[in-house]
Amino acid sequence: MENAPLFDELEHPWELLAELIEANNVELIIALLDQLNPSATALAVSRLSQPHQSSLLTLLSPEDAAEVIEDISDSQAVDLIEDLEPQQAAAILEELDSDHIADLLGELDEADANAIIDEMAPVEAEEARQFLQYEADTAGGLMISEYLDFRSDQSVQDVLDDFQTNRDEYTYYNVQYLYVTDENNQLEGVLRMRDLLFPVRTTRLHQLMIRTPYAIHVNASLDELRDFFEEHDLFGAPVINDNNELLGVVMPEAVEDAKRKRSVRQFLGFSGIIGGEEFRSMPLLSRSGRRLSWLSLNIVLNIIAASVIALYQDTLSAVIALAVFLPMVSDMSGCSGNQAVAVSMRELSLGLIRPKEVMRVLSKEASLGILNGITLGVLLALIAYLWKGNAFLGLVVGGALAVNTVVAVTLGGLIPLLLKRLKLDPALVSSPLLTTVTDMCGFFFVLSFATLVLDKL
Amino acid sequence: MENAPLFDELEHPWELLAELIEANNVELIIALLDQLNPSATALAVSRLSQPHQSSLLTLLSPEDAAEVIEDISDSQAVDLIEDLEPQQAAAILEELDSDHIADLLGELDEADANAIIDEMAPVEAEEARQFLQYEADTAGGLMISEYLDFRSDQSVQDVLDDFQTNRDEYTYYNVQYLYVTDENNQLEGVLRMRDLLFPVRTTRLHQLMIRTPYAIHVNASLDELRDFFEEHDLFGAPVINDNNELLGVVMPEAVEDAKRKRSVRQFLGFSGIIGGEEFRSMPLLSRSGRRLSWLSLNIVLNIIAASVIALYQDTLSAVIALAVFLPMVSDMSGCSGNQAVAVSMRELSLGLIRPKEVMRVLSKEASLGILNGITLGVLLALIAYLWKGNAFLGLVVGGALAVNTVVAVTLGGLIPLLLKRLKLDPALVSSPLLTTVTDMCGFFFVLSFATLVLDKL
Repeated sequence: MENAPLFDELEHPWELLAELIEANNVELIIALLDQLNPSATALAVSRLSQPHQSSLLTLLSPEDAAEVIEDISDSQAVDLIEDLEPQQAAAILEELDSDHIADLLGELDEADANAIIDEMAPVEAEEARQFLQYEADTAGGLMISEYLDFRSDQSVQDVLDDFQTNRDEYTYYNVQYLYVTDENNQLEGVLRMRDLLFPVRTTRLHQLMIRTPYAIHVNASLDELRDFFEEHDLFGAPVINDNNELLGVVMPEAVEDAKRKRSVRQFLGFSGIIGGEEFRSMPLLSRSGRRLSWLSLNIVLNIIAASVIALYQDTLSAVIALAVFLPMVSDMSGCSGNQAVAVSMRELSLGLIRPKEVMRVLSKEASLGILNGITLGVLLALIAYLWKGNAFLGLVVGGALAVNTVVAVTLGGLIPLLLKRLKLDPALVSSPLLTTVTDMCGFFFVLSFATLVLDKL
Repeated sequence: MENAPLFDELEHPWELLAELIEANNVELIIALLDQLNPSATALAVSRLSQPHQSSLLTLLSPEDAAEVIEDISDSQAVDLIEDLEPQQAAAILEELDSDHIADLLGELDEADANAIIDEMAPVEAEEARQFLQYEADTAGGLMISEYLDFRSDQSVQDVLDDFQTNRDEYTYYNVQYLYVTDENNQLEGVLRMRDLLFPVRTTRLHQLMIRTPYAIHVNASLDELRDFFEEHDLFGAPVINDNNELLGVVMPEAVEDAKRKRSVRQFLGFSGIIGGEEFRSMPLLSRSGRRLSWLSLNIVLNIIAASVIALYQDTLSAVIALAVFLPMVSDMSGCSGNQAVAVSMRELSLGLIRPKEVMRVLSKEASLGILNGITLGVLLALIAYLWKGNAFLGLVVGGALAVNTVVAVTLGGLIPLLLKRLKLDPALVSSPLLTTVTDMCGFFFVLSFATLVLDKL
């Protein structure tokens, strides 16, 4: 079905792409992009210089430019669109699905987004403004406006005629269901494509349709949408407002995609990449600045934790061997705590724990913390004793690790629940908060226990 | 469309569920489960005691039990299935989609899985054995056997008759396309549902079908599947082997779902939860053991890192203030390195970097490492100088942080690429490997720089 490739397999297609852009050779650019699969396109575009990226979108027709935009990630796309004239950007965006338009406009500065909307055709502009007002990760933010709706007094023949007339437009639609509305655009029913196969063609839609179909409120959250599509095996669901007016359609793929993006944000946030994705094709200073914004907060937290050590310098001078164990105790406790954070975040996202169930997490994690604390404490005590030959040193560091593991595991389990109740993002805040507290406590337990038995060490 | 709920909104539906199980009241159990959405069902089941969970599945008919299995996560489902008699388990599994059966059997012990397969009906057993041989996260592992295929010499009327006859069975299918095969089950073409709407009913399928349709090889990887569905906006794709024989159909939802599960595994692995998911409903000892398996490796890595401190005890005794800065330098570098790990893992999963592009990552991360290293180093140097009033101390700790940041960022960027080339999972191995090296180097830089200017400190 694919034609023979015009170009040989290229190791670095972006080099050829850059040459073709320099030569303004639109025909070969399109041929080359056609030959690349979406991730190869995304890779090639990301490796172009900033000026070449802008030229590429400017050279291509809005339709072809929109295909490029569809192949690359939203963060990349926003970077490219920012560099375009609003008029060009508007022409390209108009070729995309309505939820994709809203996603991209939502990630732009408000001024940039408005400048682009002003250049769009009135109908599309109106729709974009409407879609932008819905929050991301709600039914409104995920729905599309590309669906088929008919009036309940239309006949099967009317629908089939409409299909023939608009065949070209509808091929871009995910046509699974026909939605049936009354004269006020209020949702009355739904029809599956195959329901049109058998009936007499003069039948009116209200005679065929499934009445009061499942519908989703425009403000439904991502978790509600997940539940909805897990419960009902549908190819799409109509989105309505308080007045039962049909506003759009949410596809299960959009819900899956939003869930996956949420997982990615969690992973990135946990690793200290905040404020959107970073790609190595971005300018050095912007990458550096974004990473530093998180690291500079971290340095403050570290000072707070390390100041505990400063309070016990006399003990540390007297028993310098303790310095070896300080980072071990704090690091081990941090790891134990992060495990509990991960389990809590996972249970929260699956709905297996509710934010208010603090007592359940407390009892489950405290018992596990005691068990693992004793195990790890005994292990570290033995290591310290064998290494330094002092049983009291073993007791001090092992005891400190045991107690601090209980603190870290319990706190790690609870922090995501508490942050969720405070409407803060557990992925971003849990780890730094936990690490600071467990570092402080770890240093404090080792050094204060040591101070108690200083003459035996 | 929903009936009025039979039960009032329950705060703890699992308590009622447990009572109903005790009373063997199947009718009310089904009514209660019907009223709960999937995540509420998963929550309620997870809160039952082990014996109650087993009784629940035993009390319900295989059809109803299968609905419970569909509502809960695979890890939960496997726990429940393990406790059942193979015969019961087989009856329940037969009600599920073929890819779901394979997923669950694949997570069981081989002996348990075989015992269950032996109890299945011959056709289903044969299919399960066939599906089990495909690797997870390949087209074979994600495909389903619930699709419609017809012979190319059949007519439209034959198809419509078959629809009428098998209407009940097909309602559980995601019927978007009809696949057309020859007498040897080799894929010849595809038809969309709507292609059946207009033609004369005696038309043969080979006259209507789209020839040589897009198809996916049974061994295609998850990334290839992602590219395929990004490139082709299809509701499903036929899966073929080397002989072009039709084996199953992969739906884009299954691909999205597998991608999301991969993100979840990455997140959990990064947080030290390995060997499958942990839920707080699991027995304490099993939870503790799984977490300890990772922590006990971590303690070894910590000893290796901390032994560097032991080598420099004399320097540390002479300038005890250094002990405050040791954990700060190692922790800050660890964070910088983890940011680079996250960016590499993200670029790898988007296809924006290839595992062999070591030089690109090296140059991009080294320059960022130098920039951020100098910034953070100067900051820490100032803090140390203001705190302790010694410029040399500032130089030592700031210099150590600067150099170690370069090491951590460069290494963090490279480790996922190298692990990928070694076929190891970057999500599991990157962070501990990185932390051990950056801890060691951090301690070494601080203490060896301090040794050089010991008389000035």
